[in-house]
Amino acid sequence: MAKILVTNDDGLYSPGLEILYKAVRELGEVYVIVPETPKSASGLGITLHKPLRVNRVKFIDTYAFLINGTPSDVIYMALKVLAGPIDLVVSGVNIGDNTSIQVILSSGTVGAAAQASLEGIPAIAFSAAVKDGDILVKEELAHAIESCIRALVEEILENGLPKGVDLLNVNFPDVPSKRFKLARPARVRFINIIEEREDPRGGTYYWLYGEPVEPEKGTDVYAVLVEKEIAVTPISLSFYILDSKEVVEFIEKVNGRLEEKSL
Amino acid sequence: MAKILVTNDDGLYSPGLEILYKAVRELGEVYVIVPETPKSASGLGITLHKPLRVNRVKFIDTYAFLINGTPSDVIYMALKVLAGPIDLVVSGVNIGDNTSIQVILSSGTVGAAAQASLEGIPAIAFSAAVKDGDILVKEELAHAIESCIRALVEEILENGLPKGVDLLNVNFPDVPSKRFKLARPARVRFINIIEEREDPRGGTYYWLYGEPVEPEKGTDVYAVLVEKEIAVTPISLSFYILDSKEVVEFIEKVNGRLEEKSL
Repeated sequence: MAKILVTNDDGLYSPGLEILYKAVRELGEVYVIVPETPKSASGLGITLHKPLRVNRVKFIDTYAFLINGTPSDVIYMALKVLAGPIDLVVSGVNIGDNTSIQVILSSGTVGAAAQASLEGIPAIAFSAAVKDGDILVKEELAHAIESCIRALVEEILENGLPKGVDLLNVNFPDVPSKRFKLARPARVRFINIIEEREDPRGGTYYWLYGEPVEPEKGTDVYAVLVEKEIAVTPISLSFYILDSKEVVEFIEKVNGRLEEKSL
Repeated sequence: MAKILVTNDDGLYSPGLEILYKAVRELGEVYVIVPETPKSASGLGITLHKPLRVNRVKFIDTYAFLINGTPSDVIYMALKVLAGPIDLVVSGVNIGDNTSIQVILSSGTVGAAAQASLEGIPAIAFSAAVKDGDILVKEELAHAIESCIRALVEEILENGLPKGVDLLNVNFPDVPSKRFKLARPARVRFINIIEEREDPRGGTYYWLYGEPVEPEKGTDVYAVLVEKEIAVTPISLSFYILDSKEVVEFIEKVNGRLEEKSL
């Protein structure tokens, strides 16, 4: 029987966790292990400087383990202490989409999946382009998401991820959809803006915030927000370019500069 | 005159910042802007929930701006408030190497460079495989690193990064070297281990720590730690696979499963 880890970056009270658990609970031996407190935007950080602790609590028809750490800590606690070898890690469902390279790189939901992938475990990050709470109210949407997750997980448990793919980033629209669509990530999701203000004592401070960019056709943002389809981005962690002519020539030129200086 | 941002994830007191600044100070109009306190392993997080403040302090023969935020916050404060458009971002020199996909993905030094790259700015992350302090004591090493950085930055200011490359991750060995070598990142740098302990009250807690893995030939870890060369990893943020036969078939199969269930 497949061992499946259900996790997220928002902790036990995220409504998306329940949907994810219900989607996979009949597909294997399921462990629910999550950070004790929300760890959004924590990326792949791990906790080295303070001890980790585990709490076991009731969760739906099973129990969940809470870890006082990051999504990455959860992966290691699962593998080394609580569950042993795992066949698949599913993370989410995050409330709010995790689309675009900009957002993917800082997402804790995707971070947990990437950490699992570094340990050689197939992993999927799920997010939904909904605002807090919505997702549970719209029962039809929750059911659609559940059955889509189930179909995807069944396929991966039977046949694995496609060759070269380390993890999947999946984003659901805010209406029920039954079609997965391959989509490249947009480069950015938000234009970051800084607003300058003055505090009561005359000191200057700044608020950083993001304004959504206009979605571009063909991107994950467009698929989810405009086309209302389920965007799937297959991610490879081989993000380097070594053998292009340009790269090789570039290094030769830099080494040439160094030699000239040494003469 | 080129505008260059010098930053890091460890703040003003990192000995690597001085080396980096000295390496580039004659190559353009240089801004030194860093997090107020060390932000290691902060990845690409930005600060949305609290105001940012700026402090200006003396630094070598110029001044530096301190930001109470993350490396990514620094990039935005530089672009939007302190410096305006920037031609090149250099980050580091981090004390300790940032080699392997595992480490790159959680590195604040690389995170600052990636954030710059998302804003369309060429960026380089520099790290050195030295322990705290060493780097300053070994004057010969510091000089070698400085002149290597200068050669690399000169080339990029003149001709830009090679096509398709978003940022460079550069790791120096702990001895003077004058040769840049292209190297793919190892997958992992550390095997993470968890040690279980008991506190005085009988409660269980856990320490997470990493043991270095044996470096594999051809990787950045091997180049830096074994061959003692300067490892350069050209990074592309296009980390997705969309058009392989396997990926396309995979999505068709999953959509097929969904259709079957709906019948």
